[in-house]
Amino acid sequence: MTVNLLKQKIGIIGGGQLGKMMILEAKKMGFYVIILDPTFNCPAHSIADEHIVANFNDTIAIRKLADRADIITYEFEHIDAEVLKVLEEEGHKIYPTPRSLEIIQNKYEQKMLLKKKRIPVPEFMYIADEEDMMEAGEQFGYPFILKSCRGGYDGKGNVVVHSPQEIKSAFESLGGYEQELMAEEFIPFTKEISVLACRGIDGDIAVYPVGENEHEDNILIQTKVPAQITKTLTTKAMSLANRVMKVFEGVGMFCVEMFVTEDKRILINEVAPRPHNSGHYSIEGCVTSQFEQHIRAITGLPLGDTTLIRPTVMRNILGDMEGNGEAFVYGAEEALKVPGVKIHIYGKENTSPKRKMGHLIVTAQTLEEAAERAQIAANTIKISPRKEN
Amino acid sequence: MTVNLLKQKIGIIGGGQLGKMMILEAKKMGFYVIILDPTFNCPAHSIADEHIVANFNDTIAIRKLADRADIITYEFEHIDAEVLKVLEEEGHKIYPTPRSLEIIQNKYEQKMLLKKKRIPVPEFMYIADEEDMMEAGEQFGYPFILKSCRGGYDGKGNVVVHSPQEIKSAFESLGGYEQELMAEEFIPFTKEISVLACRGIDGDIAVYPVGENEHEDNILIQTKVPAQITKTLTTKAMSLANRVMKVFEGVGMFCVEMFVTEDKRILINEVAPRPHNSGHYSIEGCVTSQFEQHIRAITGLPLGDTTLIRPTVMRNILGDMEGNGEAFVYGAEEALKVPGVKIHIYGKENTSPKRKMGHLIVTAQTLEEAAERAQIAANTIKISPRKEN
Repeated sequence: MTVNLLKQKIGIIGGGQLGKMMILEAKKMGFYVIILDPTFNCPAHSIADEHIVANFNDTIAIRKLADRADIITYEFEHIDAEVLKVLEEEGHKIYPTPRSLEIIQNKYEQKMLLKKKRIPVPEFMYIADEEDMMEAGEQFGYPFILKSCRGGYDGKGNVVVHSPQEIKSAFESLGGYEQELMAEEFIPFTKEISVLACRGIDGDIAVYPVGENEHEDNILIQTKVPAQITKTLTTKAMSLANRVMKVFEGVGMFCVEMFVTEDKRILINEVAPRPHNSGHYSIEGCVTSQFEQHIRAITGLPLGDTTLIRPTVMRNILGDMEGNGEAFVYGAEEALKVPGVKIHIYGKENTSPKRKMGHLIVTAQTLEEAAERAQIAANTIKISPRKEN
Repeated sequence: MTVNLLKQKIGIIGGGQLGKMMILEAKKMGFYVIILDPTFNCPAHSIADEHIVANFNDTIAIRKLADRADIITYEFEHIDAEVLKVLEEEGHKIYPTPRSLEIIQNKYEQKMLLKKKRIPVPEFMYIADEEDMMEAGEQFGYPFILKSCRGGYDGKGNVVVHSPQEIKSAFESLGGYEQELMAEEFIPFTKEISVLACRGIDGDIAVYPVGENEHEDNILIQTKVPAQITKTLTTKAMSLANRVMKVFEGVGMFCVEMFVTEDKRILINEVAPRPHNSGHYSIEGCVTSQFEQHIRAITGLPLGDTTLIRPTVMRNILGDMEGNGEAFVYGAEEALKVPGVKIHIYGKENTSPKRKMGHLIVTAQTLEEAAERAQIAANTIKISPRKEN
C-alpha cells in the first residue's frame, strides 16, 4: 500500500462549532485542515491549519479552498450547490455530494424524493400563492405549517397557520411570491426523535441509536439517548434512517429528524446532510462520535462502531436573555462538580439571547441519573454578556 | 460570581504529543493556549493559539510565556526548575509547582522523599564513584541498576550492572564523575503497573484505575486496563498513588509507576509530574481523560470522574526499523476496520526507529477482546519513512 489517507488535506466550508468539533477529531488522527469562514475569530479558527477569511458565497474563495484541499466538506447546508457542482465536475472531491446537498437544501424536493421512495413523511404541497394555501387548509385542516423551502433553521422560516384569516399574513411573513414555499400538515406528535447515520464512499452505512429531542421555541434544548420508545419503534426508526441514507446516496454524517405520532407511526420531519446538534451526545456517549465518523467517511476510512457506551443526555447552553455582548461563562465550576458532566464551550466571542454557545454532555449508569445531573448542571451554568466591573 | 475560569490563558512548555492532547481537551472547554517549543511544526503547533518558537532553556522565552499566560504547565520534567521558581516568586501560577518538579526531576531526591514518607521503594543508594558501586553490588547483589539521577527516559540513562567487571564501563557510560548517579536493587517483578492520579489546587485527589504495562527495550508498548491483579493489590496500588500525591503536593496529573513483586509487594518505581504515556488509555477508556483532568486541575476547576467505562487497551505506534525520514502511515484503513479501534497520530514530521509516533486505543466488552483487537490493529498499522514513488 502506498497511499497515506491520513495525509489528505480536509477543507471545511464553515468554521462554527460543527467545523470546530470536526477539526478536534481530525487532529487526533493527524489530518491537515483548512477552513473557510467570514469571521476571523470563529470557533474553529485557532485549531485549523489554515483559515480562508471569506464569505460563504465568495466563489473565488471556495475555489481557492478546493485547490488547497484534497476533500471538501461543509458544516451547514445553505451553500450554493451549483458552485460545488462545477468544482466536482472539475474533479474535486466534495462530500456530501453536491447532488444530495441540492435536493436536501430544498425542503420540497427533499420531501418529494422521500415520498417517491415510499418513506413516510407528513402530507405536504407546494405553495405558489394564497389560493394554494386555502387548498392546504382544506386538505390538511388547521393548523398547518407554512415553510420556506430553503434556508430555514431553528424554526426560522416556519409559520403555523391557525385559520384562513392568518393565510395572508403568514404568506407575506415568509416572503410571499419572492420565496419558494410549501405547506405541511401539522403533526400532533408524541415525541421528536432523531437518528444519526453515516455512509462511506464505498456505500457502507452505520446507524446510531435513537435520540429523543426536546425543543423550546423551535430550538433544541435536550437530547436523551436511548430514546424512551418501544423496541419496535427503535428498530423502525433506525431502519428508516438506513433507507434515507440510500435514497440520498450521501457520503458523510446525516441526521434524520422524525416524529412519533399518537398512533405509533414514524414520519420523517427533516434530513440534515451533516453532523447535527442532536448528535452531539455521541462525543461522549458513543464509541465513535458523529464528528470522527464524518471525518472517517469523507476521507475514505472505514466507519467506526456506533454503539452507545452509557446512557447519555446532551443539553444546549444558549446565550441567556440579558442581551448581546462579549460572552462570559458563569458557573462552569459548579456544573463540573456534578459527576459525569462535560462542558463544551464553542468559543464564540459574543453572546446573544438563545444563541448556541455550547453544550453539556452527561453520561451515567442510567438515563434518569444522566437527565437529573444534566438538569442540575444546566441550572448552574449560564452565558451572559460580560458585566463591567 | 464574576470570574470566568474558562477565560484563563494556559501556557504549555513543550508542544509534543502530550501538549497536543492537553490542547485538544482545553479547546473543547474554550481555553486559549500558548505553547513554547523549539520545533515550528511540532505536534501541538497547528492547534495552539500562539506558539513561541524557542528552546526549553531560553529563559527570556519562558518569561515571555509566563507574561502572556495566566497559568504555566509543562509536558515533560526536564526543565530548569530554578527559572520556574523565580517566576513563581514573582506571582506567576505554575502547576505542578516548581518545588515538586525539582524533587521529582532528581530521581535520588524523589526516592529519598518517598522513603522518608514510608512509601515502599526499591533499595537505592547515591553513587559518587566506582567504590560506591562496589558497595551497591555487595549490598543489593547482582544485577543491580545504575541510573542517572536526572534526564533519563524510555530506559535512556539506565544501565544494568551484571557483575563487578561491568562497574567501570557502566560508570563511564553514564557520564561518571560528570553526572549525579544512583544505584538501585534489581526488582524481579511479576508485573509493571501504573496509576494515574490528579490533585486539584484545593487539595482534592482523584485516582484512576490500575493499568498494566508491557515494555520492550524499556519503551512502553502496551497498557491494559484494568490490570489483571487481585482486588487487594488494586486497592493497595490506588492507595499508594493517593499517598504519593500528598507527598509531592502536586497540582495536576501525575503518573505513579510501580512494580508488583513475586511476594505480592508493590514498590514505587518512578513518579512523573505530568500526563503519561501509560495513561493515554483514559482518552477513550475513562469518563475523564488524563488530559482533561490536568486542564481541570491547573485551571482550578473541579476534578472529573475517573471511572473506567469499558475495558481498554492502549498500544503505542512506534516508528519502524526502516530508518529516518518523512513519516508515512501505512495500513490505517485496515486498523480502523477492527471494531472499537481509535487511532491517534501525533503529527511528527519525521519518523525514526522506535520513535513514539502515535498510539491506538481499543475499548471492548472484555479486556481479552480489547487486547485481541489491539493486537490485530497494531499488526496492520506502521509508520515508516516515505518511499519515493
